[in-house]
Amino acid sequence: MRIFTFDTTLRDGSQGEAVSFSVDDKVTIASKLDELGIDYIEGGWPGSNPKDKEFFARAKEHRFQHARLCAFGATRFAKHAVDRDPSVLALVEAQTPAVSIFGKTWDLHVHRALGIGLDDNLVLISDTVSFLVSHGREVIYDDEHFFDGYKTNPDYALRTLEAAKKAGAHVLCLCDTNGGTLTGELAAIVAKVRERFDGVVGIHTHNDSDVAVANAIAAVEAGCTHVQGCINGYGERCGNSNLVSIIANLELKLGHSTIGPDKLRSLTALAHFVAELANLPLRNDQAYVGQSAFAHKGGIHVSAVLKDSHTYEHIEPARVGNRQRVLLSDLSGRGNILYKLEEKGLADRLSEDARRELLERIKHLEYLGYELEAAEGTFELLVREALHPNASFFEVINFEVSTKMTGSRPSTSAATVNLKARDGVHSATASGHGPVHALDLCLRQCLGQLYPGIQDVRLTDYKVRVLEPKKGTAAKVRVLVEWSDSHRSWTTVGVSDNVIEASWLALLDAIKLELMRITEKDETIDKALADYSWGV
Amino acid sequence: MRIFTFDTTLRDGSQGEAVSFSVDDKVTIASKLDELGIDYIEGGWPGSNPKDKEFFARAKEHRFQHARLCAFGATRFAKHAVDRDPSVLALVEAQTPAVSIFGKTWDLHVHRALGIGLDDNLVLISDTVSFLVSHGREVIYDDEHFFDGYKTNPDYALRTLEAAKKAGAHVLCLCDTNGGTLTGELAAIVAKVRERFDGVVGIHTHNDSDVAVANAIAAVEAGCTHVQGCINGYGERCGNSNLVSIIANLELKLGHSTIGPDKLRSLTALAHFVAELANLPLRNDQAYVGQSAFAHKGGIHVSAVLKDSHTYEHIEPARVGNRQRVLLSDLSGRGNILYKLEEKGLADRLSEDARRELLERIKHLEYLGYELEAAEGTFELLVREALHPNASFFEVINFEVSTKMTGSRPSTSAATVNLKARDGVHSATASGHGPVHALDLCLRQCLGQLYPGIQDVRLTDYKVRVLEPKKGTAAKVRVLVEWSDSHRSWTTVGVSDNVIEASWLALLDAIKLELMRITEKDETIDKALADYSWGV
Repeated sequence: MRIFTFDTTLRDGSQGEAVSFSVDDKVTIASKLDELGIDYIEGGWPGSNPKDKEFFARAKEHRFQHARLCAFGATRFAKHAVDRDPSVLALVEAQTPAVSIFGKTWDLHVHRALGIGLDDNLVLISDTVSFLVSHGREVIYDDEHFFDGYKTNPDYALRTLEAAKKAGAHVLCLCDTNGGTLTGELAAIVAKVRERFDGVVGIHTHNDSDVAVANAIAAVEAGCTHVQGCINGYGERCGNSNLVSIIANLELKLGHSTIGPDKLRSLTALAHFVAELANLPLRNDQAYVGQSAFAHKGGIHVSAVLKDSHTYEHIEPARVGNRQRVLLSDLSGRGNILYKLEEKGLADRLSEDARRELLERIKHLEYLGYELEAAEGTFELLVREALHPNASFFEVINFEVSTKMTGSRPSTSAATVNLKARDGVHSATASGHGPVHALDLCLRQCLGQLYPGIQDVRLTDYKVRVLEPKKGTAAKVRVLVEWSDSHRSWTTVGVSDNVIEASWLALLDAIKLELMRITEKDETIDKALADYSWGV
Repeated sequence: MRIFTFDTTLRDGSQGEAVSFSVDDKVTIASKLDELGIDYIEGGWPGSNPKDKEFFARAKEHRFQHARLCAFGATRFAKHAVDRDPSVLALVEAQTPAVSIFGKTWDLHVHRALGIGLDDNLVLISDTVSFLVSHGREVIYDDEHFFDGYKTNPDYALRTLEAAKKAGAHVLCLCDTNGGTLTGELAAIVAKVRERFDGVVGIHTHNDSDVAVANAIAAVEAGCTHVQGCINGYGERCGNSNLVSIIANLELKLGHSTIGPDKLRSLTALAHFVAELANLPLRNDQAYVGQSAFAHKGGIHVSAVLKDSHTYEHIEPARVGNRQRVLLSDLSGRGNILYKLEEKGLADRLSEDARRELLERIKHLEYLGYELEAAEGTFELLVREALHPNASFFEVINFEVSTKMTGSRPSTSAATVNLKARDGVHSATASGHGPVHALDLCLRQCLGQLYPGIQDVRLTDYKVRVLEPKKGTAAKVRVLVEWSDSHRSWTTVGVSDNVIEASWLALLDAIKLELMRITEKDETIDKALADYSWGV
C-alpha cells in the first residue's frame, strides 16, 4: 500500500537539545529530502520565529520535484478572529501547498494551557481548518496529545477529530506528543479511530518510552497511511520517531510503498548528510544506516556471515546503501585481518613473515590505545607499508611548536619542523591559528615542492578523547583526525599523553598515506585500498 | 506480575563495536547490577575466551545479594560426547548457579553452520540441557534465531523448544537474533508458543529494525515472564534491547514488578555508571535516563511544563532518578534564564542592569560558539561573576607553552605563566605530559600558596570539537573539560581557533570557579549554584 511520508526534521527535529540548523542548512536539507522522495517536508513555524519565516521566503524560490512543502502552526488564539490571528496569517503568507496545524485534544491541556472550555476549543479547530482550506491549502490536522487525551476522555478526543474532519482537514494526524504510550495500547486506539474515520489518518510518535518506531509501524498496521518522523530520530527530549528506520521497515518488511526501492539505496547517505549538517555524529549503532549496523565482531558470527550473510543479517545492507563490515578485536583479529587481505587480493603479496609482522604491529598499536576500527587511514598506511617495506618519503629530525598569549589578546602559535627527504634536509617555520595548524603548514612547506599532490589533502574533523580520565591533564589522549581530498575521506589516529604529539602522529600518518597513494602507484593495491569501505 | 530480568551487557553487550570491558570492569558492573536488583547476570562465555574465564574465577569470590550469575555457552559440538565437550565442561567449571546455552532453531543454520541433520540438532540440545541440569544448574535455553526459524519452519522451531523443555530446561528463551522481526509478527509468534508451552518463556531481542524494546514489551504482553537485554542497549550491530527502557516501561507503564519502585530510582545513575566503564558517552536522548529525556527547549513546551509538568512529561523524572531541565536557546533564552535565577532564589539579588548584562554576555558567548547547555561550570561562573562583580582573584599577564619532539623520542612540553594576584606578580615554569598539563601545573604553582583549595580540583575528561570543519586545521574548536573535586563534577568550555587557547580558557574558568566557590562564601548562592542539577 502507498504510505505517505511526512518529515519534520526541520521543525520538530530542530527542537532537539543539540540540534541547531541555519537557514542555509534548512534549505539544503529540504532539497535533499525532496530528492529522496519524501512526500511532505515540514519546514518550520513561520508564525513563531524569524529564522523559519526566512526559510519559507527562501523556499519559495526553490522548485521541489516531488515533495509538498508544509508550514506548521497552531489553531487560532481564543482572543483572535481567525482572519486576524497573526500566527494563522503567517501560515497563509508562507505560501506552501500544505499546512499542518496542531490543536488540543487532551482536556487537561484545554483547561490548563488554553484556559477555555472544551466546546470553545472545538470552535478554534474548526475555524482554523476551514480558513486554511478556503485558502486552498492541503491541511494536515495534528491532534496534539491525542493518545493521552483519548485515555482520559475518549469521547472528547474523537470530537476534536470530528471537528477537524468536518471543517475539511485532509489528514487527521494522531500525535503521541509525550511519547508515553506503549505499542499495544497505541495500536488498539488507532484501530478505534479507524472504525470511525475513513480517509487519510496519520501517526506522529515520540521516543520517550523507546518504542517510537514500533509505534509508527503498529499504527500503519492498524490503518494509518501517513507517517510523520525525523531523520535520525532528532527531536525534543528523546527525539521523534526515526523516519529512516520507519521507511526501511515499511519498504523492506511490510511491502508498503514510500520512497521506492531505488531511492531506498540513498537512505544511508542521506542519514549521514543530515547528521553532518546537524553537526552531530551519526550513531554507529543506528538501525539500517549506522556504520555498525552490519558489522560483525564475534568470531562465530564472523565465520557464519562469511559463509552466508543471511545468517546474521536481517536484510542485504546494499538495499539501504549500507555495507557489511568485519571488525578487528582481541578475539577475532588474526582471522579477520587475513580475511580482509584475502578478500582484497593482497594476502598473497605479503610473505608469511610480513604478514606476522603486520599483525604484531596492529596488536601493539591497539594495546597502546590506537583504535584502528575507527581509523581506516592509519590501517591502510600500515598495510601499504607492509606491502612496500622500502618506501620511505621523509624522516622527521625534530619539531617545536609554541603558543603564546598576552592578556586577553588572541593567542599566536608558531612551529619549526626539520626533516630529511630524498633530496636533503628541509626546514620550515610557520605561524598558524593553532599549534596543529602551524605544524601542518610546516610539513606542507617542507614537502610541497617534492610532492605537490599533498596540497589536496585537508583536515575536515578533529576529535580528542581522553583514554585514562582519572589521570587529569596528564592522561593519555587519542586524537582522531578526518581528512579529505577531492574524492574521498579517511581518518588517521595518534595516541600519546601529549595532545600535540598525538595530533602530530595523526598528521604524519595522513601525509605519509597520501604520499604512498601518489607515488607508489600499483593499481591492484590502489583499487583494493582506496575503497573507503575497506573499513576493517 | 513478576517479570524476571536477565542482563547480558557483559556477554552480548560486549560484542558491541565500541564496547570493551576489562575483567575489573566486568566484576564492578556485575556487582552494580546485583545492587540494582537484576535477577540474572550473564557474565560471559567461559569456553570461548580467557578473559571471561578469569571473570568467572574472580566472580566466585564475590557474594551476590540477589542476582544469579549465569555462564553462557552453546549446545555441545556434534563430534563430542557432552561430557567430553570442552565448552560444556567450561560451563560446569564456571560454577555459576545458572547457565544459558544457545542452540540452533533455524534449519538454514542447522544445515549451513552446523552441517548436520535436523534430528541430530535436537539430540545436541537435549544432551546438553540434561547434562547441565544433572549438574544442578538452572538452565536457560536460548533458542537462537527462533523467529527466523519459526517463519521458515514453525514445526521444527517448536520441536527444538520441546527438546529443551523435555530435557529439563527451566526457561525457554525466544531469540530474535538478527533483530529483523517487527512487533506485530513477533507478538503473534510468542502467543503461538504460549499456547504450547507453560512455565517460564523468555524473550531476547536485537535492535536492527529499531523496535527491540517494543518487541520485548509486546512479548511480555503476549506471555513472556523473562526478559533479556543490555544496559543502554549495547550489543553487536545495532545493539540488544535496552534493559533500562524495558525495566522502566514494565514498572511504570504496565504495572509489572521487576526491580521494584525503590531501586528504579537508581536507574539513571546505573545507566551513567555503565556508560562510564564502557568509555562511551551516554546518549543525551536516551529514553528515561538521558540528560535530555526531560529537557524542554521550545518556548510553548517550557511555559506549559512550568505550569504543570505532566503536560509534556510522560512520567515524573524522579521515579527513574532523572530530573527536569529547561534549556537555553536563541528562542527561549531570556525567559529561561530568568526562570532559573528565580527558581534558585537569585533573581532578586541581581539589579535589572546586572541581569541584562548577564543575558547579553551569555548570548554573545553562544554566538561565538560556546555551548553553555553542556558547560554548567562556565555558566555557574558567569552567574557568580554577575553576583559578585568586584571579585577578582588574578589577572593573567601572559603565558607561553611549547612542545618539542626529536626523532621518535617522546615529546616534551614546557610552559611559563605570569600572573598578577592580590599579593603581587607570580611566575611559574613547568614541564608536563602535554601543553595543557604544563599550563595547569603553572597555574597551580602561581596560585597554590594563596589559595590552597584549588589543589582538590582535577581534570577528569577532555573533549575537542571542530566547529567549522571545512576550514581544516585553521578551524575554530570548542574544548569541553570536565572537572571534579572531592564531592562533585562540572564542565567548563573554551572556544578559539587555537586548541591551546580554547583549553586554556576552559582551564581558567575551572580555576576561577573554584576560587569563587572557596572564597566568596555565601550560603544561599553556594547552595543554589553548587547543585549539579542546576544544569541550565
